[in-house]
Amino acid sequence: MHNKQMKAMVYYGANDIRFENRTVPTILQPTDAVVKMLKTTICGTDLGIWKGKNPEIEAVAREKTGDWQGRILGHEGIGIIEEVGEGVRNFKKGDKVIVSCVSRCGSCENCQKQLYAHCENEGGWIMGYMIDGTQAEYVRTPFADNSLYKLPEDLNEDVAVFLSDVLPTGHEIGVQYGNVKPGDTIAIVGAGPVGMGVLLTAQFYSPANIIMIDLDDNRLAMAKEMGATHIINSREGDAVAKVLELTGGKGVDSAIEAVGIPATWDICQKITKAGGNIANVGVHGQPVEFEIQKLWIKNLTITTGLVNANTTGMLLKSCCSGKLPLEKMATHHFKFAEMEKAYDVFKHASEENAMKVIIEFDR
Amino acid sequence: MHNKQMKAMVYYGANDIRFENRTVPTILQPTDAVVKMLKTTICGTDLGIWKGKNPEIEAVAREKTGDWQGRILGHEGIGIIEEVGEGVRNFKKGDKVIVSCVSRCGSCENCQKQLYAHCENEGGWIMGYMIDGTQAEYVRTPFADNSLYKLPEDLNEDVAVFLSDVLPTGHEIGVQYGNVKPGDTIAIVGAGPVGMGVLLTAQFYSPANIIMIDLDDNRLAMAKEMGATHIINSREGDAVAKVLELTGGKGVDSAIEAVGIPATWDICQKITKAGGNIANVGVHGQPVEFEIQKLWIKNLTITTGLVNANTTGMLLKSCCSGKLPLEKMATHHFKFAEMEKAYDVFKHASEENAMKVIIEFDR
Amino acid sequence: MHNKQMKAMVYYGANDIRFENRTVPTILQPTDAVVKMLKTTICGTDLGIWKGKNPEIEAVAREKTGDWQGRILGHEGIGIIEEVGEGVRNFKKGDKVIVSCVSRCGSCENCQKQLYAHCENEGGWIMGYMIDGTQAEYVRTPFADNSLYKLPEDLNEDVAVFLSDVLPTGHEIGVQYGNVKPGDTIAIVGAGPVGMGVLLTAQFYSPANIIMIDLDDNRLAMAKEMGATHIINSREGDAVAKVLELTGGKGVDSAIEAVGIPATWDICQKITKAGGNIANVGVHGQPVEFEIQKLWIKNLTITTGLVNANTTGMLLKSCCSGKLPLEKMATHHFKFAEMEKAYDVFKHASEENAMKVIIEFDR
Amino acid sequence: MHNKQMKAMVYYGANDIRFENRTVPTILQPTDAVVKMLKTTICGTDLGIWKGKNPEIEAVAREKTGDWQGRILGHEGIGIIEEVGEGVRNFKKGDKVIVSCVSRCGSCENCQKQLYAHCENEGGWIMGYMIDGTQAEYVRTPFADNSLYKLPEDLNEDVAVFLSDVLPTGHEIGVQYGNVKPGDTIAIVGAGPVGMGVLLTAQFYSPANIIMIDLDDNRLAMAKEMGATHIINSREGDAVAKVLELTGGKGVDSAIEAVGIPATWDICQKITKAGGNIANVGVHGQPVEFEIQKLWIKNLTITTGLVNANTTGMLLKSCCSGKLPLEKMATHHFKFAEMEKAYDVFKHASEENAMKVIIEFDR
Repeated sequence: MHNKQMKAMVYYGANDIRFENRTVPTILQPTDAVVKMLKTTICGTDLGIWKGKNPEIEAVAREKTGDWQGRILGHEGIGIIEEVGEGVRNFKKGDKVIVSCVSRCGSCENCQKQLYAHCENEGGWIMGYMIDGTQAEYVRTPFADNSLYKLPEDLNEDVAVFLSDVLPTGHEIGVQYGNVKPGDTIAIVGAGPVGMGVLLTAQFYSPANIIMIDLDDNRLAMAKEMGATHIINSREGDAVAKVLELTGGKGVDSAIEAVGIPATWDICQKITKAGGNIANVGVHGQPVEFEIQKLWIKNLTITTGLVNANTTGMLLKSCCSGKLPLEKMATHHFKFAEMEKAYDVFKHASEENAMKVIIEFDR
Repeated sequence: MHNKQMKAMVYYGANDIRFENRTVPTILQPTDAVVKMLKTTICGTDLGIWKGKNPEIEAVAREKTGDWQGRILGHEGIGIIEEVGEGVRNFKKGDKVIVSCVSRCGSCENCQKQLYAHCENEGGWIMGYMIDGTQAEYVRTPFADNSLYKLPEDLNEDVAVFLSDVLPTGHEIGVQYGNVKPGDTIAIVGAGPVGMGVLLTAQFYSPANIIMIDLDDNRLAMAKEMGATHIINSREGDAVAKVLELTGGKGVDSAIEAVGIPATWDICQKITKAGGNIANVGVHGQPVEFEIQKLWIKNLTITTGLVNANTTGMLLKSCCSGKLPLEKMATHHFKFAEMEKAYDVFKHASEENAMKVIIEFDR
Repeated sequence: MHNKQMKAMVYYGANDIRFENRTVPTILQPTDAVVKMLKTTICGTDLGIWKGKNPEIEAVAREKTGDWQGRILGHEGIGIIEEVGEGVRNFKKGDKVIVSCVSRCGSCENCQKQLYAHCENEGGWIMGYMIDGTQAEYVRTPFADNSLYKLPEDLNEDVAVFLSDVLPTGHEIGVQYGNVKPGDTIAIVGAGPVGMGVLLTAQFYSPANIIMIDLDDNRLAMAKEMGATHIINSREGDAVAKVLELTGGKGVDSAIEAVGIPATWDICQKITKAGGNIANVGVHGQPVEFEIQKLWIKNLTITTGLVNANTTGMLLKSCCSGKLPLEKMATHHFKFAEMEKAYDVFKHASEENAMKVIIEFDR
Repeated sequence: MHNKQMKAMVYYGANDIRFENRTVPTILQPTDAVVKMLKTTICGTDLGIWKGKNPEIEAVAREKTGDWQGRILGHEGIGIIEEVGEGVRNFKKGDKVIVSCVSRCGSCENCQKQLYAHCENEGGWIMGYMIDGTQAEYVRTPFADNSLYKLPEDLNEDVAVFLSDVLPTGHEIGVQYGNVKPGDTIAIVGAGPVGMGVLLTAQFYSPANIIMIDLDDNRLAMAKEMGATHIINSREGDAVAKVLELTGGKGVDSAIEAVGIPATWDICQKITKAGGNIANVGVHGQPVEFEIQKLWIKNLTITTGLVNANTTGMLLKSCCSGKLPLEKMATHHFKFAEMEKAYDVFKHASEENAMKVIIEFDR
């Protein structure tokens, strides 16, 4: 397979991504696999890289290799295993798999704590970031035994793509860190793909009330279809006041931040009841003001985090039931040849009424 | 006992406390007890009230009763039960008891979650604040069955006084919320009484390294005697750099804030490792800058809180073992007649090398 | 209200229950309430008492009062508060309430651990057992603030009756102790009312597979309607083998025993996977053989327990959503005047296709 | 190194172990390491194998290889790494390491749940059992990155040997599963090496009272030196009655079974308070009678298990503090040349006043 060519979406620098030919990747470590992609998608993080938010990508590449030849984007998707290294025990050529956005060595101190996002041995959240990713016909996945999941026959393939990142992120960093329990009243601030991942996976724990807050009526309408019990458009008046009114002045058990700006953090810190949780899922670019002079007394638990993908297996089992409208998140479908168009639509997700775009490779 | 007089330390307004005669309190509710005090102490919160930080005390009193006759300070101490209401089941006249700083109805939604600090039925942290307190010869304690603890014969009486507030606060809001475990490396920022409460009760869970950070060499020396394995005077150079050096660049498992100012919060947010905990115990007067642009990715758990006193019974059993030098926190002893002098010493705690002052009533 | 008469179902001894006139109860303690019943039901425990399984009822009564005048049965139901003691804070005459099967003082060591079933102060599971119960037009409830729950307007009244005992028992002792999680495969052994309570409340946590095992095809069919994904009639072949087959030889994550005989315990200990849970909910009359020579190595967690009703509030919020067919458990309805007939039907529940019978009082 | 010879203690069948020459092991998988032993010890399990309790050893070997050439015993010890496979990332030749009794692949479903004892990929508790072990000059360790721990310079080497098995077993299966907390009263039934491991590691959580129960006064005296607060010789009267007397009739918070016979199980089930824990650590050869007719109501948690060694890293950090007399468990030291004598002494541990015997290799 050496020197065989493939198409890939490659990041070169701020506002410079190119859909071009690259060499098909090969096994580098005995624990690697190479996967032929069937479906992939685009994440908000990919847009951020495109916009130039992550200059460290080029810097680290230059530091390690003295060179910079671009980085293939993408950390989500499903595919068929093309080849496995000799140290791979759980997978073989031909297996249909989900590629997790997180790789892990499994043996470092952080991996032993299931803190896989912070693997100290060339694992973590690195595909399409520190190593080439899934927006290509083939991808090399390190630590394959720990980073791939067999795709059950009865699972919708689009939903399987969401198991790479958006559902585990919503579940682990939003729902589990946010301690969502049966009967709870929770608020999710931000109805983008990650907020929707929170909304969907929160329902595995049967909260009584799920309040979705966003600025976009279309997304709020979609949230209602996906299980939100209340929606608030924060453009139309004071979202904080509305949440307090809905909760008899007490606030919510859990507020889940799924945007990443000071205004949405601020809503969260103002609507959470004594003893409650604020789970930050959003990626922030600047500090926020933390009203600790009011909140020191409130017995709050505030969490942050990058997905560990330690619940991917659990979600895989849960998502097969068909009880939740998980596949509705896939609002648009494109062929891989239309990758640039897919990026364009996702970049204007709000105007396009797009939530997640699914990219299909030729089979 | 009606109209019998007693001495009490009464707050009237900013910088106005008076050691004066008051009427001995009586049972108002069937669940009340009246306790004749044996020992009490002064808390940093009492100093704050004195300095005028809590104008709500007068405001609420005026709103409720249309009047303001001052408030007897104090929420800590031990005593002998003088009288119990007819609804009190667990105590009787003559019992020697610890008075907890937290009262609770036991039946509201928050009490059912063991969030006693936020009792919705005239309980919570109210003594010496919303109702008269323990810096008096007698005190009325509401919900006596839930707010008093029988004092075991083999427990040092000074240590028993610390079980009213400073040890439960350190244990619950610092150690438990901070998730301190065997083998951990933790940092405590602030070697005042609450920081010492954290230091002492943390040792019940056997962390491998306890780093105490403060500006005062005397307090740091005392911390070392009480179990700190490392001390850092943050006046002498960069405390953050020193902690990172001590921890191989990784940071601590738990950082516990026990001061309540932006600078100490900032140390905490800079020294906590990925997956770690920041437990805020300090009472803050202004917002802090939360570097969420760096910390969103670190899988941190940040907690705040007021003591629930839900572990007082557990601590009572633990503190009898004599393995920890708990009584060393009592650096000064005064007669109740010297109450004003005790306040003066505690107000200048640093110059006086004072940690906790114990006030003894005539027996 | 003194000496006013009411109808009640009274236990006098083995096989001797009488539907007769009794004096309406009055407030005895300041924390009591008297409730006029709207609906009640019959529990398997009531049948057990009737059959003579609990001679301690008479023995304790004689020991305490030197007399035995029978015991009004019943520990479930809803009603309207008729009168409250002066120490009751959260309820008033006219409130529509659920009567919990568990009372609690809230202050003893066990209540402080939320182990309300083992309240050391005349609380616990005592109604219709150690004190008169709910199968009467009026009932006295001790510790009313801790034992009653306001009935929301939007909750089905039959479901509200199930919140007295069968749903909390299933949830706490079956589902929570059994550690049911999203994606799990669980087995419930016994499709009687408590097994159904487990089946329904387990769904709040979204297990992927719920296997119901029973001898009665009607009950198994009902289980399927209520959410079981697989049913096994253990009369038709080896239930253990069938469960192992369904689970690829590994066994279930949680096995929940809801019968109380050696054969059902034995199924549980044979079908639970390494690292799994066995939650015993059934009331047993004889010891069982525990195959610890095989199970010492399997990292099992085995639990037993009497309901604490500490999740009644949580269930109340969860049950209003209408997502689960909770009301289907109410297979039969009777007027209170037909109480003897209701007992007769419930005694022959299997032949009558009865699950829970609802008794309605005149309004 | 091929065909180089070494001495080893080899099991051939019931009552047939031979101290003989064997070929030095070599790397078989890229994830293997070969370790030159510095110290090892003998476990009760080794005695069991010797006595013929594990005929599966020979059976499995014959099934897999069609042959039976004996099995080198031992699953504990420290050594120097001689060679690593190419897939080993965390260790290199010359590293001084602790060999854990548990190996793990890290990627199977059980390993993902930290249930390493039940690794589904040729890991688990297999050394000196399903593969050759540590009672030899060299040992091959599979999954070296996950099965070895760097030995800190400041850790006593005998204590390091105990970190292979006896301390993690006591800690995980006894103390953690037994939910030992500050202030608790616990009972340990059996003062052999594993019971001592429980006794020592329990103290990391500061229980107020530790009751050790055994038949041997010497061992009980040693338990007292190691931290037991009460000792009971169950030969001298009713141990159950004595525990109940010590605990005011309530029983203990946690009873930890560290023997493995019906009589010791029975003590545990009779001395545990409502809401308490029974943690079974002992290896049992026959079923026990479980008094579920009395215990169904007591809200007990009963656990079983084989060590996962998931807390070895935590214990490593905790054990360096020097606060606990961990090294006192090493009652006897032998040269490796005296291996047969060491077995003889350990076989008669009680008469020899032996707890753990340390075997030292030539350096």
